[in-house]
Amino acid sequence: MHFIDNLLKPGSIAVVGASREKQKLGRMVLDNIVKSGFKGKIYPINPKAKRIAGFTCHPTVSAVRQKIDLVVISIPASFVLDVVKDCVKKSVGAVIVIASGFSETGKDGLEQELKLKEVLAKKNIPLLGPNCLGIINTSAHINATFAKPTINAGNIAFLSQSGALGTAALDWAQKVGIGFSHFVSLGNKLDLSENNFIEYLNADKNVGVIGMYLEDFTDGKKFMELARTSSKPIIVLKPGKSKAAQHALGSHTGSMAQNDLIISAALEQSGVIQVETIEELFYTLMFFSWHKGEIGNKIAVITNAGGPGVVTTDEIEIKGLKLARLKSSTKKRLALTLPSSANCNNPIDVLGDALADRYAFALKTVLADRNVDAVMVLLTPQTMTDIVGTAKEIVKVTKTSKKLLISCFLGGRDVEKGREIISTSLIPGVAFPSDAVDALTNLYRYYQGKKRLSKRSSSVKSSKYAKKVNSLLEGVHGVVDTQLAERILKFYKIPLLRSHFPKDIADARRGADKVTYPIVLKLIHPKLVHKTDVKAVKLNVMNNKQLVQSYNELSLLAQRLKLEGYKMEIQPFITGTLELIIGVKYDEDTEIQVGHAKTIVKSRGFGHSLLFGMGGIYTEVFKDVSLKMIPLVDDDITDILNNTYAGIILKGERGVNYNVKKVRDVIKKINQLVHDISNLRELDINPLFACGKDVWVVDVKMFVA
Amino acid sequence: MHFIDNLLKPGSIAVVGASREKQKLGRMVLDNIVKSGFKGKIYPINPKAKRIAGFTCHPTVSAVRQKIDLVVISIPASFVLDVVKDCVKKSVGAVIVIASGFSETGKDGLEQELKLKEVLAKKNIPLLGPNCLGIINTSAHINATFAKPTINAGNIAFLSQSGALGTAALDWAQKVGIGFSHFVSLGNKLDLSENNFIEYLNADKNVGVIGMYLEDFTDGKKFMELARTSSKPIIVLKPGKSKAAQHALGSHTGSMAQNDLIISAALEQSGVIQVETIEELFYTLMFFSWHKGEIGNKIAVITNAGGPGVVTTDEIEIKGLKLARLKSSTKKRLALTLPSSANCNNPIDVLGDALADRYAFALKTVLADRNVDAVMVLLTPQTMTDIVGTAKEIVKVTKTSKKLLISCFLGGRDVEKGREIISTSLIPGVAFPSDAVDALTNLYRYYQGKKRLSKRSSSVKSSKYAKKVNSLLEGVHGVVDTQLAERILKFYKIPLLRSHFPKDIADARRGADKVTYPIVLKLIHPKLVHKTDVKAVKLNVMNNKQLVQSYNELSLLAQRLKLEGYKMEIQPFITGTLELIIGVKYDEDTEIQVGHAKTIVKSRGFGHSLLFGMGGIYTEVFKDVSLKMIPLVDDDITDILNNTYAGIILKGERGVNYNVKKVRDVIKKINQLVHDISNLRELDINPLFACGKDVWVVDVKMFVA
Repeated sequence: MHFIDNLLKPGSIAVVGASREKQKLGRMVLDNIVKSGFKGKIYPINPKAKRIAGFTCHPTVSAVRQKIDLVVISIPASFVLDVVKDCVKKSVGAVIVIASGFSETGKDGLEQELKLKEVLAKKNIPLLGPNCLGIINTSAHINATFAKPTINAGNIAFLSQSGALGTAALDWAQKVGIGFSHFVSLGNKLDLSENNFIEYLNADKNVGVIGMYLEDFTDGKKFMELARTSSKPIIVLKPGKSKAAQHALGSHTGSMAQNDLIISAALEQSGVIQVETIEELFYTLMFFSWHKGEIGNKIAVITNAGGPGVVTTDEIEIKGLKLARLKSSTKKRLALTLPSSANCNNPIDVLGDALADRYAFALKTVLADRNVDAVMVLLTPQTMTDIVGTAKEIVKVTKTSKKLLISCFLGGRDVEKGREIISTSLIPGVAFPSDAVDALTNLYRYYQGKKRLSKRSSSVKSSKYAKKVNSLLEGVHGVVDTQLAERILKFYKIPLLRSHFPKDIADARRGADKVTYPIVLKLIHPKLVHKTDVKAVKLNVMNNKQLVQSYNELSLLAQRLKLEGYKMEIQPFITGTLELIIGVKYDEDTEIQVGHAKTIVKSRGFGHSLLFGMGGIYTEVFKDVSLKMIPLVDDDITDILNNTYAGIILKGERGVNYNVKKVRDVIKKINQLVHDISNLRELDINPLFACGKDVWVVDVKMFVA
Repeated sequence: MHFIDNLLKPGSIAVVGASREKQKLGRMVLDNIVKSGFKGKIYPINPKAKRIAGFTCHPTVSAVRQKIDLVVISIPASFVLDVVKDCVKKSVGAVIVIASGFSETGKDGLEQELKLKEVLAKKNIPLLGPNCLGIINTSAHINATFAKPTINAGNIAFLSQSGALGTAALDWAQKVGIGFSHFVSLGNKLDLSENNFIEYLNADKNVGVIGMYLEDFTDGKKFMELARTSSKPIIVLKPGKSKAAQHALGSHTGSMAQNDLIISAALEQSGVIQVETIEELFYTLMFFSWHKGEIGNKIAVITNAGGPGVVTTDEIEIKGLKLARLKSSTKKRLALTLPSSANCNNPIDVLGDALADRYAFALKTVLADRNVDAVMVLLTPQTMTDIVGTAKEIVKVTKTSKKLLISCFLGGRDVEKGREIISTSLIPGVAFPSDAVDALTNLYRYYQGKKRLSKRSSSVKSSKYAKKVNSLLEGVHGVVDTQLAERILKFYKIPLLRSHFPKDIADARRGADKVTYPIVLKLIHPKLVHKTDVKAVKLNVMNNKQLVQSYNELSLLAQRLKLEGYKMEIQPFITGTLELIIGVKYDEDTEIQVGHAKTIVKSRGFGHSLLFGMGGIYTEVFKDVSLKMIPLVDDDITDILNNTYAGIILKGERGVNYNVKKVRDVIKKINQLVHDISNLRELDINPLFACGKDVWVVDVKMFVA
């Protein structure tokens, strides 16, 4: 038995806070459990009542003699700790704390929360919440929430850090016909988090798709691993892209800002579909709920009006889906039966006087075309239009095909009747074409991403250099000396632009002659991180005379900046190169100080990420960068190159040939290096030069923990 | 009296095709006219009936003795011409042709259409259609369409090239409570087009906003002028961004592909709001219909759930609106009355147990804050939520404030009752926050754009060079000789990189010495348009020896390409510059060949546009360009610079200083030049070099009609 069974499939439930007053939350929870048809034992806990709603009351949890799988605690925050202690005494299976007033209100609340955790940890009792709505499991006939009692059953499992968004989803579901297997209101995630439930729900055959509203990730790396290996599609809405939203998040659930670029990369690389709006979340869940199996991107549109057909075509193509090219036999079949002025090319216009039978014929014909992956049926309410009849025909025809069919009845009052028929038949029905196109795109993206996941393995082996490199870094914390960093790169055969580190000015002249003029002269010191800002780099030094002058200037600068033990570096000055950047960062854990310097890990980060793009003005002005989580697989590197102008130019789009293979190679080697050096926190290769057949690292910065 | 009054405010209507069979379109039109409460005379025309629907029938239009303002012809295409001839005989006021089967079916149909036009032109009788649904004018109580009979009255005038999209809009209106002043189904726009109606509707006090679905623009320049001077907001949905949609447009209404970049620029510069989806069109019309007067971008959100509040915050900020910063007095007032755990910062969380009164209090308080321009009220259906009561309170509070209030009741079945109350109260109600944010953004954009329009005048004066320059171009058609083009630029004091045109190789050596090495040597010939493709440009020529070699190579090339009368050009080779591009194009009229070389102008273009951006790889790979219609005003040039990386870099974002003023100046001069040379068809300044304090035109190509 999985420990979460205690929560989602309990045999017995105690409700603390069950009351004789029907308006109290605890009573609502009790009533919902009863109404949902729960077959197990129910124990209202209330010291002031003998019977509630026909059940025998107990004064405390521990006063119940029988085994209790789940305790739902629905009393004010200040009384919760004592009840939790009692739960531990009784050794219950799991606890849900409904009450708000904990960490979402500030540090005092967090301390209260941590006490609960401490107490429960003694007997390893899992806790959901606090500050949550409870749970629903339709297949186990249990609704232990204070949300509405009647829930459409279905195959959507919805985990939400906002209980209210859950209630909106449940209400929307009743209008559009979708249904839920589970609803879990995650609340403050003191103990149980999204990760526990993903693991559990993944094994439940009643679950078709997992939808989530998350305000933060409890353990980013773990989430990625679970999502990557999940057999169920996962759809996530994660707000916080804007500063204002990050601020709001902080104030209402105490969530910490997590880097949006990293989250997007992490989700994408683990096959999770990220959505941007509530509308997109809801419709995407609808589409995943009702369509099983891979789907292509070739969409056919059947419409009784040209205009909406053209607008839909634009939406399909702009989102990256394709308007299907019908087989000529399909077009011929359509032309034989449809009126002569009908358009038998996709988008297929069955004309304004189309009745249900004409729609049905066109639909059957188009569904049979193997160039078509999905069909969108548009209906506008024209004078002749048989709204109800057409809806019924759509329902009939759908049953004959495994392809996805989407219905869009455009309008309001009159088309409502048609929409209702559609909504009871597991056919995605949308109000506007754009809703469908977003959801369809997500469906297609998911299966495209899934193909890639199989190539992805979380296990990267350490290289033969790992031991040596780590021993060199022993005792180093913070900035790694440039020469050591370069030495480490050399282990991995990452090409470095040849350098000379002159001892004095005479040696500098010899060095400059060796690398040949024009040269670059740089001042090197661990404290000197942003060299160009303090003018510590002299470009295009042409001859001995300029070298002497530059050398003297940099020496003076070093003295002024008090850079003891500084060094100089000479490199050839190369022009006509493509300037690239590769950066590695580590997504840190989020920690909070509680009480006196007691540090709590609020959430665990996503680990290392790699950023690639063009250097110089490109990085700053053009923001031409692509970010991926490490470890990278070949597909990731391909993405990186496709998603940046840097990559496009490297591939010779402009006639100029660069060595893309060598750039890929450097990225792969860095991928390995990051794996080997687990305490690496930052690595900046900026610039990386691509020039003809060659690739060189010109400057490297490294930080370790 | 305006001639369109005959269509939209007729005193008498004849319906050709009125039938005793209630299912015939002609009869539907007749019935709709009657049902809509039309007060004028009604004449059914049908040679086979004596009375229809209680009205005396006439066999032909000309058989009616009384004056006829409007004739609606609802019979098959092949019979239309004879009726139209009869209408001319009778000198009716205006004609609507409902029938399809004209130019949308191909060239034969177009020829039929043109015959109608020819006949009507004899007496200057305006025609709407063919292939249309008819017209509705709610204030004149006339519905002369075969759409649904009952229409919500309101202040939205909707012009549509898709009749069916109109029927969808009318149906949607009945659900959400918006209403129409006019609906005009434009059909094939044989005679009357959007432009005639914009002019007319602009003068109608019943019109608050003009919405349009357009598949092409009948006269782009005229449209811009009308829109620019329109006192009513204009919202346009124009499909055809994708190739597939352009293809579909061509096949269903015979529309020609119009350049999307040009349309967007033209609409933006004339204060028109362009929308992308049907959903955005509908909601935008709703918001414009119910909100009058300028609006700022500072939005407050009141919600009974944190999650949806944060998601909405993201949507607001990402679209470029701002989450309002509440005054501290507002926050204090909120804090005094709301429960302690409520969030009094925007987004304001009134908590899950908020009843109607708490919503009302928060709403009143926030509306009174002068830092707030609009308020979005979110409601999720939680256990305690009073959906109906809250909707009623929202309606009450709205009446006390001129600020825009938007209601978003998130959910489906349960919240429906609240939505219904909202929909009858002229308060924009949306199903999802994203719908509101798009529409709000359009409202804000409109009033921002309107401020700029006042600075825009269509009258640019010819410069003092106009006469001279045009005389120089007399007799020139097609490519303008480079030296002449450069001479023209010099008139306008547009800085040209100094050039030398050597007569022979000795002269070249002298020239190269004059401009100083390194130099660029170019082969010049009117036929040589893409110089780099045939290697007709020698870059970085370093010395006399290389010059001789390059000169000889280019001479050989000229001979091989048979470029008689070719020239050479010497310019200094400059590096370290920012390479820009300025291009001028002319949006041509769309013409169709009918019958034997009879050319019909199907639509008139938008005229000259100017494209600005970075040159070289930037133009091709980065697509870093901004396009504006000419004439430009200062704001346009500011936009051009803000919307391109080129502009950002020019402004010294990177520490490197360029002379932005001089770049602005070149753009202004080109603006003048284009005005002066009306038959200019193309002008390419590529590259334009920006280097330190200077700006130079390096290469120019010019084409005239």
